[in-house]
Amino acid sequence: MLRKVAKSAVLTALNAYDKRDGALQPQSPSAWDMTVSDVGELCWEGNSLAALAERFGTPLYVVSRARLERDYREFLGAFTALYPKVEIGCSYKTNPLPGVIRAMHEIGASAEVISHFELWLALRLGMPGERIIMNGPAKTDKALELAVSNGVRLINVDNPDEIATIERLAAKYGRRQEVGVRVVTSVGWSAQFGLRIGTGQAMEAFRRMKAAPHLVPCALHAHLGTGIHDAGVYFTAVTEMLQFARRLRDELDVEMRYLDFGGGFGVPTVRPLSPTDRKLIDNGFQVKPPREGLAPTTQEYAQGIIDRFSQYYDVASPQSPQIVFEPGRAMTSRAQCLLLSVLALKNGDRSSEYAILDGGKNITIPLGYEYHEAFVANRMKETQTRRYSMFGPLCHPGDVLFKHRDFPKLVKGDLIAIMDAGAYFVPNQMNFSNPRPPAVMVSGSDVRVIRERETFEDIVRLDAI
Amino acid sequence: MLRKVAKSAVLTALNAYDKRDGALQPQSPSAWDMTVSDVGELCWEGNSLAALAERFGTPLYVVSRARLERDYREFLGAFTALYPKVEIGCSYKTNPLPGVIRAMHEIGASAEVISHFELWLALRLGMPGERIIMNGPAKTDKALELAVSNGVRLINVDNPDEIATIERLAAKYGRRQEVGVRVVTSVGWSAQFGLRIGTGQAMEAFRRMKAAPHLVPCALHAHLGTGIHDAGVYFTAVTEMLQFARRLRDELDVEMRYLDFGGGFGVPTVRPLSPTDRKLIDNGFQVKPPREGLAPTTQEYAQGIIDRFSQYYDVASPQSPQIVFEPGRAMTSRAQCLLLSVLALKNGDRSSEYAILDGGKNITIPLGYEYHEAFVANRMKETQTRRYSMFGPLCHPGDVLFKHRDFPKLVKGDLIAIMDAGAYFVPNQMNFSNPRPPAVMVSGSDVRVIRERETFEDIVRLDAI
Repeated sequence: MLRKVAKSAVLTALNAYDKRDGALQPQSPSAWDMTVSDVGELCWEGNSLAALAERFGTPLYVVSRARLERDYREFLGAFTALYPKVEIGCSYKTNPLPGVIRAMHEIGASAEVISHFELWLALRLGMPGERIIMNGPAKTDKALELAVSNGVRLINVDNPDEIATIERLAAKYGRRQEVGVRVVTSVGWSAQFGLRIGTGQAMEAFRRMKAAPHLVPCALHAHLGTGIHDAGVYFTAVTEMLQFARRLRDELDVEMRYLDFGGGFGVPTVRPLSPTDRKLIDNGFQVKPPREGLAPTTQEYAQGIIDRFSQYYDVASPQSPQIVFEPGRAMTSRAQCLLLSVLALKNGDRSSEYAILDGGKNITIPLGYEYHEAFVANRMKETQTRRYSMFGPLCHPGDVLFKHRDFPKLVKGDLIAIMDAGAYFVPNQMNFSNPRPPAVMVSGSDVRVIRERETFEDIVRLDAI
Repeated sequence: MLRKVAKSAVLTALNAYDKRDGALQPQSPSAWDMTVSDVGELCWEGNSLAALAERFGTPLYVVSRARLERDYREFLGAFTALYPKVEIGCSYKTNPLPGVIRAMHEIGASAEVISHFELWLALRLGMPGERIIMNGPAKTDKALELAVSNGVRLINVDNPDEIATIERLAAKYGRRQEVGVRVVTSVGWSAQFGLRIGTGQAMEAFRRMKAAPHLVPCALHAHLGTGIHDAGVYFTAVTEMLQFARRLRDELDVEMRYLDFGGGFGVPTVRPLSPTDRKLIDNGFQVKPPREGLAPTTQEYAQGIIDRFSQYYDVASPQSPQIVFEPGRAMTSRAQCLLLSVLALKNGDRSSEYAILDGGKNITIPLGYEYHEAFVANRMKETQTRRYSMFGPLCHPGDVLFKHRDFPKLVKGDLIAIMDAGAYFVPNQMNFSNPRPPAVMVSGSDVRVIRERETFEDIVRLDAI
């Protein structure tokens, strides 16, 4: 009985929460540099998304080259305003569309790869070895040989066993290979990755690398997590890495050429779904978009990181180490959206009507754990809303895109734009009963297909039929 | 303090649990019809898995044709011993390898498809329309047109809007199309699927179909879930469907030709991970394999279902409806394993050493929510064990295959066989930084590649490079 009363009180409070003016308004399309046309169509760089969907079909990824460039330049510029030797590596794993990667390289990013395939792709895209950094917990001997033989600039060791392999390969190819260590600090991810500073593992790896005649130990690498919205995590890790770099100089006479602080920076337009969000959703309520100011600005990151760096190195000296970042999400998340069509509408539950879309979990894995904004891209001026749950085309009840979210009243054929589809959507795609989407890149009036739609024949082309 | 004492008591109890003789022994390879050779290699139909890995590389799927055939014949035979008009449709979504599907068709299964692609594939594999059943919540107009124009035997309606479309297409192609309704009973999945019997939605759909001149309403379809280990769920649903079929006859004069009870049957060698399992794993403990007798036998299912059926229909009459099943997991799960190699070993945590394998979450999604057996396929006679956590090659701490499980002491290059990789492994595969695996089918001494290994070029062949 008490429990029932408590539950009812909670639901009343939630209902009040749900009805607060504006609290549940979606973010503005301007957060992605999108505009709304006179006829209510969502546009990117002047291109109507509805027209693109009409021309190329759905599901469809759309990438804005201007937005890619803006996010790159703003991130880099915030740091280079304070220290010139800063470099951004394009995180191949975050968005492996070669068209996106190529654009990032054209804009100025180097390559950060974590697998044999990604290394191959960087070379295939014409990147010289000296613009490639190789990371990852599972470097096969073949991948390391491809790296060393192609003069990859830096290999960050994840596991002490890699040291002997790289030494052998460097000797074979007559190179002196620059190497670093992926370190684990007191904050951020540890798990299966890297070597701890605190236990002496990292120091021991440097000792071994220093003793290897074909290796040049000269880098520290960390990667703290994904979608991080807490600058303090970075500041702590950076401080520990700077302290460790000083110890390497003092104890081993090893000087850093690169301090690679990795990626993981969250974007302000996406937030992880919390246990509370899940409870709200389970009870039929809409959850809130990210609040403004959720993510620290790049200026705040830059100021905090370079402040700490400058306590250890002279920011005016060309001898000071290169600072490397590998922000995946912060570079590509906001520059790509996913367009889906409403295939069917049906009676739903107490809280929501149901819409079936032509893409589901097969191509939207991040929607399972993150809040992403979504718009009805062909009817942005509609003011009357209804509450919907949206499902994909798979035959599983977990094939959910959104539950209980307000949208303009839908009709079959409406176009749903899922925002921030530029990070971890493409690498997590699967062929569950369906082909994978194509991608177009818009750059002003220039619209080009950067990945073609997979045909049914494509799906089975490696099969004996 | 109290909390600390309680926690310590729990851990003591868990330690005792963990050390019980035999409780944590893995299942026997004979559960998959595998044997162990004199030199300790795991073998399928006489083929050493280590030799296959050596020849074709890893990651690699291996399919046993004999096991596929056995599971098909045993399932079907249990039912046909009691009632002759029983049919099994091959669930394309569960294992979309065309080589597996073709084998299922050769053995006798018809086709159950849930998407445009799957329908296309069935036709591409030479299945005549009359051996295809079309289901799914997201049937596009194009897919329905392909179905109707090719004489697909039965289309089960998920959404009332489909009725008008199918009627229009049947008229266009001069056909009388057999149609059914996916119904929702009081048990099993409902969510976004089908039409409820209880609310009258399903009856209303039959009324509309009966009024459509080119439609022949004659089927009920249900799909209750996945990995179900509770026969009662089926018995309840079957009874409700039989009652509804009687009402359809009495109220609408509509006679059933097909009762399609769907799939979802669990296998005895796999079980879902419970919240308790997760707590054990989080605390460094190994969890138990499925206990014997976990899943009802097919005889139990057959007896229970045909008993109920015989209360409504004469099992001796050729006029009684065809019973259709679409068991995916029960047909293909045990007939396929996934072979992975140990790439690296490293210091772990208090409970386990760490092994990095050449495949992770990118190709083993079901390991996240199900207990699957795993063996070190090249050293089955090793008796000394250590506790390991196994990770994949991706750069994410969630890239976990197993945590805290006992295996023979590993060395780099060891071969891990993950069992029951024949259901929901292939459809959930992704290209996260890596190519997707090939598959070989063994049939005695006949070993053939049914899917080739994806090359790096294959991954980007639809991209503008």
